[in-house]
Amino acid sequence: MTIHSKTSHCKIVDCTVRDGGLVNNWDFSVEFVQDLYQSLNESGVEYMEIGYKNSPRLLKGADQAGPWRFLDDDFLRKVIPHKLNTKLSALVDVGRVDENDILPRSESLLDLIRVATYARDTEKAIELGTLFHERGYETTINIMALSNVMDNELNEALAMIGDSPIDVVYIVDSYGSLDPDDMRFLVEKFKRTLKHKRLGVHTHNNMQLAFANTLAAADLGVELLDASVYGMGRAAGNTPTELLLAKLTNPSYSLRPVLGMIERHMLKLREKEEWGYLIPDMITGTLDEHPRSAMGWRASAERDRFTDFYDKMTTPEIFPGK
Amino acid sequence: MTIHSKTSHCKIVDCTVRDGGLVNNWDFSVEFVQDLYQSLNESGVEYMEIGYKNSPRLLKGADQAGPWRFLDDDFLRKVIPHKLNTKLSALVDVGRVDENDILPRSESLLDLIRVATYARDTEKAIELGTLFHERGYETTINIMALSNVMDNELNEALAMIGDSPIDVVYIVDSYGSLDPDDMRFLVEKFKRTLKHKRLGVHTHNNMQLAFANTLAAADLGVELLDASVYGMGRAAGNTPTELLLAKLTNPSYSLRPVLGMIERHMLKLREKEEWGYLIPDMITGTLDEHPRSAMGWRASAERDRFTDFYDKMTTPEIFPGK
Repeated sequence: MTIHSKTSHCKIVDCTVRDGGLVNNWDFSVEFVQDLYQSLNESGVEYMEIGYKNSPRLLKGADQAGPWRFLDDDFLRKVIPHKLNTKLSALVDVGRVDENDILPRSESLLDLIRVATYARDTEKAIELGTLFHERGYETTINIMALSNVMDNELNEALAMIGDSPIDVVYIVDSYGSLDPDDMRFLVEKFKRTLKHKRLGVHTHNNMQLAFANTLAAADLGVELLDASVYGMGRAAGNTPTELLLAKLTNPSYSLRPVLGMIERHMLKLREKEEWGYLIPDMITGTLDEHPRSAMGWRASAERDRFTDFYDKMTTPEIFPGK
Repeated sequence: MTIHSKTSHCKIVDCTVRDGGLVNNWDFSVEFVQDLYQSLNESGVEYMEIGYKNSPRLLKGADQAGPWRFLDDDFLRKVIPHKLNTKLSALVDVGRVDENDILPRSESLLDLIRVATYARDTEKAIELGTLFHERGYETTINIMALSNVMDNELNEALAMIGDSPIDVVYIVDSYGSLDPDDMRFLVEKFKRTLKHKRLGVHTHNNMQLAFANTLAAADLGVELLDASVYGMGRAAGNTPTELLLAKLTNPSYSLRPVLGMIERHMLKLREKEEWGYLIPDMITGTLDEHPRSAMGWRASAERDRFTDFYDKMTTPEIFPGK
């Protein structure tokens, strides 16, 4: 096997709680999250994204969600009474975060705050990210849905970020529609345009290409690699953390602790909740569409009628609003 | 998305019945196989491998297996009374086939006979393949377990095949341990050494890289691409046929009929039988080991104890015979 010696610079950002929360409405027990933190730390994973730090005042249905959707700093200190080597991260969405909820880093357990944005909202994302940077955090801007952005718009967004104090810029394959050639194209473009930024990548597994895309990015020097234990993430899920631990060359990684996490929790969870390679998600991935229609289909009585879903997605007359 | 315009030369060889038979002991009904043949044909798939053509006299446990393990030409004519565009293929193993069982092509429904071999048995494989060639068949030699072959042995094997009348030479990732870089390395090597042969590829999904590896091979000119509907194949399974139909550029491919096959049959089958990304298979894949230990583990009471399996596979003292 290729040794991937070029991947020793990589760091893993485990998104199980944050992106997996999109699957189970953040219904993870404190014990689950504590065991995950312990396991990731023992495996040598550098970052654990422990949830969203959006504001419940800015989102509907907030009262039904588990606590990882709206992280509270006091709550977090009870969950993680002793910080280990693994750093903690939270994601915020442009337009859904109240900047007053973000304490100075010295008063928070969080180390990294990531701002998810569409290319068109890059300016707002930079404003937020700069604020968090000034409060002492490591920061990233995660540009979503890159497969649906025209080149002129993307160039403008990247130029703005290049002049900001943001540490890392993420390539996000929100629709799971990219293949390794696309990924290489984007990485080379980001490297050319953002000469002084570190890069990150977040993939989805609609076409069973999440891990291959992440590996392609890592080989080209992308540093922060998002992943989830057993691939748990919205719809088709993410790159499995266990595969990165097994294949990256960082000598401080150890696969075994995360295998224990899968054995203790993820199998049971997968019986109750659905994520991974499913045909409706494969269809939206290959059509380069948001997974929401596939998720809606899986929640309906027609969930296993794949040809009907395919017809709807490929016949505008049936889904006029698509 | 990358258009993969370089893949219009590709042909799909669907192995659902043959490789999937390794999962359910070839317990497919005639109706299943007929529906599959119809669906593949409507989807534009060029070949369907309808089983093994080994000899029951040369294999243990032969009486318990379904008819697709030892294809009989008379039986086949009842199953497929009307040949469609999709050609039929059968696989034989060196040492397990009786050459007298192979009729001249003019008397058989089969078009393609593929000979699976380890590199060390290449000479025997060429002898068999040449015989089948003389009987009028298209022929391939499929070199298994390439990740465990030293370069001098492989060079010798390829040189012998180069001088033979065999049509196509296959790169087979038996252990699911190759990544796209490995695949590109092997394809370039095979292309250099076998200037006048067409190439094929057969992948396994232990590390969720089956499709990515197949795509990497296709982009470099590999022509015959093995796949299975819904990935059904031994252990971690194969490249899903539906993903090739969705991503390759051949304008005569249509995804919808194979989606119907998944909807009608594969979901139910997957509830009864196990294949796909499973942690023990992931472990043997990353360790570059034959999947038999993972399959044995999954058949035992310890099936979900992944850390124990990992310890056994990585501690020679526990598995002295490994």
